Amino acid sequence: MNNIQTLKGFRDFLPSQMALRERILTIFKDVFVLFGFAPLQTPTLEYAEVLMGKYGEEADKLLYTFEDRGGRRIGLNYDLTVPLARVLSQYQDIPKPFKRYQIQPSYRAENPQRGRYRQFTQCDVDTVGATSELSDAEIIAVIYTALKRIGFTNFIIQINDRQIFNNLVQDGLIPEEKLTDVIRSVDKLDKIGRTGVTAELLGKGYEAGLIEAVLNKLMRSEKTERLEKIFSYLKLLEVDEANFSFSPVLARGLDYYTSTIFEAIIPDAGIGSVAGGGRYDNLIKTLGGPNLPAVGTTIGLDRICDVIEDNDLFPNLQNAAVTVLVTIFSEELISNSLKICSKLRLNNIPTELYADATSKIEKQMKYADQKKIEHVLIIGPEEAAQNMFTVKNLKTREQKTVALEELINILKK
Amino acid sequence: MNNIQTLKGFRDFLPSQMALRERILTIFKDVFVLFGFAPLQTPTLEYAEVLMGKYGEEADKLLYTFEDRGGRRIGLNYDLTVPLARVLSQYQDIPKPFKRYQIQPSYRAENPQRGRYRQFTQCDVDTVGATSELSDAEIIAVIYTALKRIGFTNFIIQINDRQIFNNLVQDGLIPEEKLTDVIRSVDKLDKIGRTGVTAELLGKGYEAGLIEAVLNKLMRSEKTERLEKIFSYLKLLEVDEANFSFSPVLARGLDYYTSTIFEAIIPDAGIGSVAGGGRYDNLIKTLGGPNLPAVGTTIGLDRICDVIEDNDLFPNLQNAAVTVLVTIFSEELISNSLKICSKLRLNNIPTELYADATSKIEKQMKYADQKKIEHVLIIGPEEAAQNMFTVKNLKTREQKTVALEELINILKK
Repeated sequence: MNNIQTLKGFRDFLPSQMALRERILTIFKDVFVLFGFAPLQTPTLEYAEVLMGKYGEEADKLLYTFEDRGGRRIGLNYDLTVPLARVLSQYQDIPKPFKRYQIQPSYRAENPQRGRYRQFTQCDVDTVGATSELSDAEIIAVIYTALKRIGFTNFIIQINDRQIFNNLVQDGLIPEEKLTDVIRSVDKLDKIGRTGVTAELLGKGYEAGLIEAVLNKLMRSEKTERLEKIFSYLKLLEVDEANFSFSPVLARGLDYYTSTIFEAIIPDAGIGSVAGGGRYDNLIKTLGGPNLPAVGTTIGLDRICDVIEDNDLFPNLQNAAVTVLVTIFSEELISNSLKICSKLRLNNIPTELYADATSKIEKQMKYADQKKIEHVLIIGPEEAAQNMFTVKNLKTREQKTVALEELINILKK
Repeated sequence: MNNIQTLKGFRDFLPSQMALRERILTIFKDVFVLFGFAPLQTPTLEYAEVLMGKYGEEADKLLYTFEDRGGRRIGLNYDLTVPLARVLSQYQDIPKPFKRYQIQPSYRAENPQRGRYRQFTQCDVDTVGATSELSDAEIIAVIYTALKRIGFTNFIIQINDRQIFNNLVQDGLIPEEKLTDVIRSVDKLDKIGRTGVTAELLGKGYEAGLIEAVLNKLMRSEKTERLEKIFSYLKLLEVDEANFSFSPVLARGLDYYTSTIFEAIIPDAGIGSVAGGGRYDNLIKTLGGPNLPAVGTTIGLDRICDVIEDNDLFPNLQNAAVTVLVTIFSEELISNSLKICSKLRLNNIPTELYADATSKIEKQMKYADQKKIEHVLIIGPEEAAQNMFTVKNLKTREQKTVALEELINILKK
């Protein structure tokens, strides 16, 4: 086997990285369910016909499609919204509003680069079949609660309404067919600043005076009626006002948003948005589904894990899932090690038994160190005789010989 | 879009099914971590070279392989053992013993039938790099604990040692090259009985007297030294003796097991094994990995969910994840509904807010019924004036008007 490696753009997640991912996913799922969203799972493979032509030619080029042995054109899911549209078509009797979350990988044959992979995990939360601002507010509250539960404090959810861009057309500042073009440039305000956006729009052939007028009008815009309601609902939902704000220049690149749009930023993290979404009242139909309004968000699991790892945040979330390694002193003392494993597990303490009775204690300690397991337990002849346990904290190097009850207290901390 | 449906052999899991799946998966992960196993995730797509020729020509025909836009032959993972072997090759410095669990879909282009799908979720738990019977015992204890935590009581983990079959060769009863053939037939003893196995072996050209002798010898076999140790470890691990037994005719079809083999059966369920595994000391190398001994199991998530659904077991595991639907009485009372949502969620009660302020209460109640949400909350003008809440249990049809504290108690039950 020559290619004993992962494909370019694909990643393994070894246990050291998975501990964090699993904890973040658990937080996400808990929060989604707390807000009344129910899980949905769709297959990795779909008819190519379901996937093709949904997001334009560019996206079609990034699809993984092929012919199966039965001669069917099939492909791997590109996102979770097209499968959602298919589900809504296929099971028309699903009760609406349909509030679903879905956590699965999507696949895109993009040019791999830092932070962009060919397989990436999407965490989507959407409410389909409701037009009320309540749904928009709840999706934003989901993002807020998820980020808070992870431990982030300094984050901002910027909120805007596409109507504010439509006003540029209604006020005769720009023609309707140019709106998408302008939105795409304004969307980069965060990254390239006012100078950069002006330069880009100049390059696209817009006049300096017009650009100035457009940007000024946007920046002076006030909340739409829809946003006023959403903001009042967010307060009633006890979303901290420090963590959301009206941002009239927030554009979001995608064409399919119809009104509310939002994006969560962690300013200190030096990374783009960690969550984004909005209302897309026509998309489900465009994607081949029934004509249903919808609002939703994607939370970027990969990006959030990257932020936490790169900035070494929340060490508790990054700890190994296993709390203690129970070593084996000798063949004769195996039963003592086995018994204490049972007792600790009955107390719900994740406990690894060293899997070889013939290794030296030093080797077993080194193994715990490599795996970043916090505690090591040793039961030698003296401990066994007194029914005591020597527990060593590998971080603090502190070592104690204690009875069962104290041992459990130490490990539960 | 004509093919707005799932591909043959693939399934959607709608929220009504996902609630159970998610709860079972949470139990599995908790148990795996409790026993010191750490999560691993590998990509869906691998170099075809990694996947091909590992399990013989039959398996190769079932692989989903294709050429990507870069001209690489790639494919979807067929199981989780080949990716494990690849990981062990690619990251040679992973600390051993390597105790990992992995929960992911695998893909096989099999002829779909009841209980057999082209995409199915595998839950694998393996210890790599240890030969001790301790590892075998712990894997069996993992199966036991997982089934117990789900709520099963009447299950049996049958345990055997391939050595008992090898003894047939050593004793000169059958030639070595016929052993696999005999194992494959004996493996069906559970399904087709002694008569069926005898008939099948007669058909394969074995003599009646020999078949009789083989089956008698197997049934009279005693535990090997390895099994004696495993059984004593299982007792120390407090695995209930009612739930495991020595089964000298247990064969397990797969060729690669080298000694310990085991299988969990739920006799009442009318379904094959729900978990199975064993020791495979040569397989990792055969699959292109380093030369490392290993023992492990696969627990069948799909089968276990089928058993529970078909026999309508453990209703608590099948309940909707959402505890209560908070209705909206009128536009004027939206803020009351929003506030109580916040309070309930702060108490960790999964709470859905009905997403439309203009629907009649009857419609909102019907929605809760359809989604099988247990409780509905109504805050009309009277409740609002008294700071009370009317809560209706949709199962018992019982209705009460209570203050916040009692409401929380009712919903937490």
